[in-house]
Formats: sequence, structure tokens, C-alpha cells
Amino acid sequence: MPQLQAKSLEMRTPQATKTAVLVIGGAEDKVHGREILRTFFGRAGASKAYITIIPSASREPAIIGGRYIRIFEEMGAQKVEILDIREREQCEASQIKASLEACSGVFLTGGDQLRLCGVLADTPAMEIIRQRVRAGQLTLAGTSAGAAVMGHHMIAGGGSGETPNRSLVDMATGLGFIPEVIVDQHFHNRNRMGRLISAISAHPDRLGIGIDEDTCAVFERDGWLQVMGKGSVTIVDPTELTHTNEPHVGANEPLTVHNLRLHILSYGDRFHLYQRTVLPAVHRISS
Amino acid sequence: MPQLQAKSLEMRTPQATKTAVLVIGGAEDKVHGREILRTFFGRAGASKAYITIIPSASREPAIIGGRYIRIFEEMGAQKVEILDIREREQCEASQIKASLEACSGVFLTGGDQLRLCGVLADTPAMEIIRQRVRAGQLTLAGTSAGAAVMGHHMIAGGGSGETPNRSLVDMATGLGFIPEVIVDQHFHNRNRMGRLISAISAHPDRLGIGIDEDTCAVFERDGWLQVMGKGSVTIVDPTELTHTNEPHVGANEPLTVHNLRLHILSYGDRFHLYQRTVLPAVHRISS
Repeated sequence: MPQLQAKSLEMRTPQATKTAVLVIGGAEDKVHGREILRTFFGRAGASKAYITIIPSASREPAIIGGRYIRIFEEMGAQKVEILDIREREQCEASQIKASLEACSGVFLTGGDQLRLCGVLADTPAMEIIRQRVRAGQLTLAGTSAGAAVMGHHMIAGGGSGETPNRSLVDMATGLGFIPEVIVDQHFHNRNRMGRLISAISAHPDRLGIGIDEDTCAVFERDGWLQVMGKGSVTIVDPTELTHTNEPHVGANEPLTVHNLRLHILSYGDRFHLYQRTVLPAVHRISS
Repeated sequence: MPQLQAKSLEMRTPQATKTAVLVIGGAEDKVHGREILRTFFGRAGASKAYITIIPSASREPAIIGGRYIRIFEEMGAQKVEILDIREREQCEASQIKASLEACSGVFLTGGDQLRLCGVLADTPAMEIIRQRVRAGQLTLAGTSAGAAVMGHHMIAGGGSGETPNRSLVDMATGLGFIPEVIVDQHFHNRNRMGRLISAISAHPDRLGIGIDEDTCAVFERDGWLQVMGKGSVTIVDPTELTHTNEPHVGANEPLTVHNLRLHILSYGDRFHLYQRTVLPAVHRISS
């Protein structure tokens, strides 16, 4: 009987939308099903969503911001607003802070992740986003450069087509929304496995996450991430690492990294950030 | 006392050179230190070596074969000979068979691995090489296409810059000198991690080995392989695989592969093919 009461209470009480952090590998579908953007829209409150777009990574903030404005307005958001932050001082403006206190979703566009961090890091605006994400009051999404900034350590740039080595990846400090991870994006599309392995060999206390284009890792507040979109999410987990020569070799010498665990996750697969467990999607039965 | 006798016997008895199989990722140094080619030369008997070169993978067998002839002659091999096999029938010729019965080293050049297999597979010549390698009478080396043919399953071609998927890799049957492995070459240089993972998801009973350019995995007869050269050898080990959607998805759909073990090995690192254990080289102490 108490169970029934609880259930009926739950059904009667209007539940707030469950917030999440959506980390998108760039080039997400903006034209057809728009599944990833639609999920962000839904998790930000759907028809009740108040979405702010931060295009600071881009050199063409008005153009890129305008594109997302139209998309979320078309979906039926209650309010969509560009926060055209180009200078750090703007992050102290009361209007910007008020928008970030009031909105239900923040979207970080692509561009240059160093530019985005240069403008936002350690500012009052940034602190509002961080606290409201942590408190479950705000759904955050970042695509491409906006995805790269998610971890504490950030891949700022790098190369491909080389044996993993220290100079293959340029590291910087990110915005730290999910401090445990090092995110790489446009991942298999731009052959970035070598640079993610190089990054993880230098920071084996983190988890490497490589996200393909038009693909999203949806981080829930309970530690699970789930994959959506058309590509894969690659997990490079150094928990069981037994050896790396990273501290001892020159910048261009080949790296040794023993006992990484590697998962290629695709649609519907889940991975737990802290337990490091992986759950397959219920797969199609072959005919 | 019996131990001492045994030791002194060992010291007095001229020991035959220990044979090996050298799997080279292509573009090995042919000009300067030539460490990899020199190791092959040594393991084939050094000044007593009788080396045969099989350039059948190449469309320019005389040119490529001639280059290796000069190198091994310069090193001081007793005899170096091109076996210019272009048709399967030649693999039954008594002269070819006699050379393969007598030589101490066989070198498979680069080119097209399908061409090499088309000429050699299931021929008397091939059978002589296989048996003598297995018996420890012959040191075998293959570079690039000559490396690709080493496993039972062979990567015949494929792409890069894509989410791992079944159509990213073309599989064929190799020559099976080391049946347990699937070899890929020019590995990080040509961004081939995605295609090796795709290959392993289809054959999780094998071990994926990706070899960089100017890099060699030296397979000893006791199951150990050791790395030499300037790049890395990547091991993709599916022993602990818990799930893949490979049997259930379409050719272009993204693959799911859970719980691969990944090692990046560099100079001096060792890996045991059957025990699946990894041993670091004694690394330089940082100053």
C-alpha cells in the first residue's frame, strides 16, 4: 500500500526534466532527423526550454550562433539566445550572468577550443554554468571544440599518421565540467587514436574518450554515459596500465603503453565513468 | 659436475644460428644503420647466410629484388639469389624447390599481398618454406605486403578515417606462417587502427598486430616477439572480449567491440603470443 501511494505520488508530481551533459564529436546532423540536437532540446526542457548558445570558440560567432538559434526555435524552444562573449570582461556582465542563471540549456559551438577556454576559464559566467550543471539545474552540450573543453586536461591540437609520441598531441587546461575525462572529437574521422593514446600515456589517471562526428556521449548525473548518433565512442581506459615510458623519453621518441583497455561503443551502448563497466545495447537479432 | 660438463659441451659445440620470423612494417631503413635488415642477415647465418629473395608481391620484381641483393651481398652473405616467381607453375620447378631447401633465409618483399598469395599459396615451394620455418631451419622475413601475408587471415586492403565498420577492411586468406595473428603494416603511419579493430571484431580468436614503418616484430620460436626499429608495434588482444555486434550489423554500420586489450610496444618490448604477457624493455632512467 505505501508503494502504491509512492507510485501515485510520482505520477501526480510534475517531474523536472533530467539534465545531462552531451558531448558531441562535431558535424552533428542539423538538417534531417537532428537526433542529437533534438535530444539536447528535450533534456533542456523541450517547449519550456530556455537555451543559451555560446559561440565563443568560433571566429564567426554570429553566423554559427544564428544557425543554432533557428534550429532550436524551429523545434519550439520557449526562448533561445546567443551569448556573444568575445572578451573575458563580458563574463562579469550582469546580463550574461542573469541569462546563465535563468536558462535551462547551454550549447557550446565548435571553433577553436583554446579560444573558448581563453574567454571562459575561471570567470563568474563559467562558475555559474559549472555549479548549475553540477546541481542538475542545467543541460550542457558541446560540439567539436565545445566537446574538447569538457575535461580538466584538454587536447588543444595535434597530428595523426605517426607512431604515438609525446609531440603528437598538444595539451592544455580545459573547462573541467567532467574532469575525469580527456575528450577527443572528429575521432575516427580524423584518425585521432594515436594522439588520444599519447594524451592518456601522459595522464593515466584520466579516461580517454574519442567521439566520432555526428555522434554523442550523453553523460547522466549517475555516472553512466550512453552513445547516440551514427558513429562510435571510443574509450581508452588506463586503469590497468602496467607500464609506460612516457616520463622517460624524448618528445619525438615512440611511446610504450602496456595494458590499456579499449572499448568501441556504438548506438545505445553504455559505459560507467566510475565503475568502468560497459553495457551493450540490446542488439538486433540477425535474421 | 654433470652441469659443468654440459656447459663446456655447449661452449665447444658450434651452435647453429637461432632462426626467427621477422615481420616488418614496410619502409625499413635500407641506407644507414639498416638495423632490421642486418638482424635478418645475422639470423639467416651472417657470413654463412644463403638468402633467397621472393619479390612476387611486386610488379617490378627485378628492381626491388636487385636492391635487396645488393644490400645482403654488401653485408657479406655467402650467397644471395632472387627467386623471380611470377606464376604458380614455377613453384613446382625443381630449381626453385632446391634453392628453398638449401637456403638459410627467405625475404618476402613489398608490393601487393593478394598477388603474393595468389602465386605462392598451397604450392610445393610454399610448403618447403613453411616446414623449414617450423623446424627452425630457416629465418623468414616479410616487409609491407610480405608482412601482411604472415597470418591465416590477411588484411588485403581497406580504408581509414571512418568509424570501425565491416566494410572498412577487406579480408582474404594469408600464407599462415603465424596463423594466430592478423598483421597490419605501415600501421600508425597510415592510420590503420580502425581497420585492424574491424578485422579483429570479425576474428576474435586471433591477435591483431599493427607494425609501423621501419619497425619489426621479431618472432622467436618460443612464442616471444620483440620489437626493434624506430616505431611501435600495436597489439590488439581480444582474449577478454565480452561483446561485439559484428555478426549482427550491416557492412557500413558502426561496430561495437567491448573489452579489447591494447598494448603499444616500442624498442625492446616483448610480448608472448600464447601467454599474452607483455614485458617492458629496460627503460632509460630519466636524469
